[in-house]
Amino acid sequence: LASKLPRVGTTIFTVMSKLAADLGALNLSQGFPSFPADPALLELVTKAMRNNHNQYAPMAGMPVLREAIAQKTAEVYGTIYDPDSEITITSGATEALYAAVTAVVQAGDEVIVFEPAYDSYVPAIELAGGVPVFVSLTPPDYAIDWAEVATKVTDRTRLIMVNTPHNPTGRVWTADDLNQLANLVQERDLFLISDEVYEHITFDQRPHRSLMQHPVLQERTFVVGSFGKTFHVTGWKVGYCLAPRELTVEFRKVHQFLTFSVSTPMQVALAGYLSEPDRYLSLAGFYEQKRDLFLQALAGSRFAFTPTEGTFFQNVSYAAITDEPDYDLAVRLTKEIGVASIPVSVFYDQRNDYHILRFCFAKDDETLRRAGEKLAQWS
Amino acid sequence: LASKLPRVGTTIFTVMSKLAADLGALNLSQGFPSFPADPALLELVTKAMRNNHNQYAPMAGMPVLREAIAQKTAEVYGTIYDPDSEITITSGATEALYAAVTAVVQAGDEVIVFEPAYDSYVPAIELAGGVPVFVSLTPPDYAIDWAEVATKVTDRTRLIMVNTPHNPTGRVWTADDLNQLANLVQERDLFLISDEVYEHITFDQRPHRSLMQHPVLQERTFVVGSFGKTFHVTGWKVGYCLAPRELTVEFRKVHQFLTFSVSTPMQVALAGYLSEPDRYLSLAGFYEQKRDLFLQALAGSRFAFTPTEGTFFQNVSYAAITDEPDYDLAVRLTKEIGVASIPVSVFYDQRNDYHILRFCFAKDDETLRRAGEKLAQWS
Ligand SMILES: CSCCC(=O)C(=O)O
Ligand SMILES: CSCCC(=O)C(=O)O
Repeated sequence: LASKLPRVGTTIFTVMSKLAADLGALNLSQGFPSFPADPALLELVTKAMRNNHNQYAPMAGMPVLREAIAQKTAEVYGTIYDPDSEITITSGATEALYAAVTAVVQAGDEVIVFEPAYDSYVPAIELAGGVPVFVSLTPPDYAIDWAEVATKVTDRTRLIMVNTPHNPTGRVWTADDLNQLANLVQERDLFLISDEVYEHITFDQRPHRSLMQHPVLQERTFVVGSFGKTFHVTGWKVGYCLAPRELTVEFRKVHQFLTFSVSTPMQVALAGYLSEPDRYLSLAGFYEQKRDLFLQALAGSRFAFTPTEGTFFQNVSYAAITDEPDYDLAVRLTKEIGVASIPVSVFYDQRNDYHILRFCFAKDDETLRRAGEKLAQWS
Repeated sequence: LASKLPRVGTTIFTVMSKLAADLGALNLSQGFPSFPADPALLELVTKAMRNNHNQYAPMAGMPVLREAIAQKTAEVYGTIYDPDSEITITSGATEALYAAVTAVVQAGDEVIVFEPAYDSYVPAIELAGGVPVFVSLTPPDYAIDWAEVATKVTDRTRLIMVNTPHNPTGRVWTADDLNQLANLVQERDLFLISDEVYEHITFDQRPHRSLMQHPVLQERTFVVGSFGKTFHVTGWKVGYCLAPRELTVEFRKVHQFLTFSVSTPMQVALAGYLSEPDRYLSLAGFYEQKRDLFLQALAGSRFAFTPTEGTFFQNVSYAAITDEPDYDLAVRLTKEIGVASIPVSVFYDQRNDYHILRFCFAKDDETLRRAGEKLAQWS
């Protein structure tokens, strides 16, 4: 069987989480919380199951959940999406990204991808017959050179992939980034996918700027969200896509045959849980404390870092300590000091290695303290 | 946005279920149970959530569930699959079908599809750039003419889609069908996808013959299964794919970027629930009674039918009553007598209309009795 994805091996998340589990290391690699979800949310699932919400949800998602998302989106961003025709529930953000790419990209189309990039973007583009065109961002600030982006846009460019707050770098787009993007796409036949799963995790009073807040962008964007990161249930796999009606029509045609529908009891539970805004609005403060706890431990070390702007990832440079490849060092630290991380080079097409490791701080305080101490000591 | 699937409209399942709901009709259209799932299974989900099984499952699925499936498969079919490298948990059978098609089909490849066919097969093939080649089966027995199939296999044929027990016709493949298929593929570079989600629902002592039981077929087949139909939880969206190691490697590369992983608490619960074989072995008897109950009510009517061999669908011919198009009649019966069904023409590429409606009898006895009476009276 000839491979459709010859370059794909085992994902780094599987590799590092398995290594951490096998060695009993503190797992700061794959992005998921080590602490429990809210029992009130679990109770809502139990209730939904007992109320016989166990059969197929409608293909677009349970109406109660789509309505709750529409209301939250209007309140938080001031943008109105019609639950009937502009909101679709998906099997996590991963399915939403895949379906949006598949709905838009035709054979030979070019897609602009900012790298470092989350590892599912490029395979989705390639399976649709598209050609990724990379704009490489570099540490320490990963700023986007919009003049460079403009040079990469051609008549074949069909789609630009956006991700803010950004995994793995933690960078958050500014109002200027949105304006620059709007200038670039305004006169063109171009679509956008905006991966905003960390929308509620931004720090130091920095606002998340959603592409839906800019009218020029909103009308051509598939905004992808997820409950996994927001409510500490990454394993439930409930995400969603917000897009104008004509885009949603095509999105749903793909979604319908990719998974058809999403866990009914989880959808009912999440709809109920969304009723209290504090449940997501408190998330930024919750994670800012964890970020600061982790960074305090590294304060006296030889690691270099700037506090992450958003997401629950902190990037750390070890360039002053060793010039080992980042992949090798991530493995070695897991084995030698029992702290697992993700080497950032894996998110670059050409494996650019800037000697940076990504640490996930969605962990209980004790784990963060211990991991920070071990790292500081090792440094 | 130019459509990648220009021929796809709203799926018939959405159309008919919505019409039935709007009109308060008895919904014998979309295939899902109207009765509750086992409280013991729901309780296992609650327990899994309380035990913090709420974060990402491994990409291939929870080891406990893969092991439980391997054991069940060995016991029921005598076929050994390695849980580590040959079993993958998916977001329902739909995702498994889509991922297998995407892993195999390259642009221009031909795929043999027996029609009437489940509505997700062709869009999946088309999105992969493949060309469906139809073998049309016709009532009353929908027997496969294997000489005809042989004429449709060319150098471009890459894949054959199999579905037994068959939706929508209820036909179950015989040992001869398996042998004929084996003869056909033996010397060729051809793969098979076998949709066997109704594996435990066959009637009148008829065994389900899985493609995995024939060595020539097994080595080139992606066998697709699901818990939704077997445990009355179609809305949970947990399915799986069994395939030899080399096929599973490519399958997982696609699955990884389609959905990545599947609901962790549901996987843990299903693993525990699989421990008692009677829970799936009793299913055939359970549904045979329902089939017979429904058919008793139609016994004196002008509908023509042969009792379905498997699945929870009964096809019924109304050719002796009216020559209306089947789609029109399905809508009319929903409106006029309050019984919703599926017109079988929608499962044919050219909408061949043999004046047959499909009724789902996965309903409580009272619903079946009432629907049968209304239909008999109308006839
Ligand atoms: C789907 S596993 C990866 C989780 C994640 O978002 C990350 O670690 O970057
Ligand atoms: C995914 S909705 C369709 C359910 C089903 O299998 C059927 O009714 O044929």
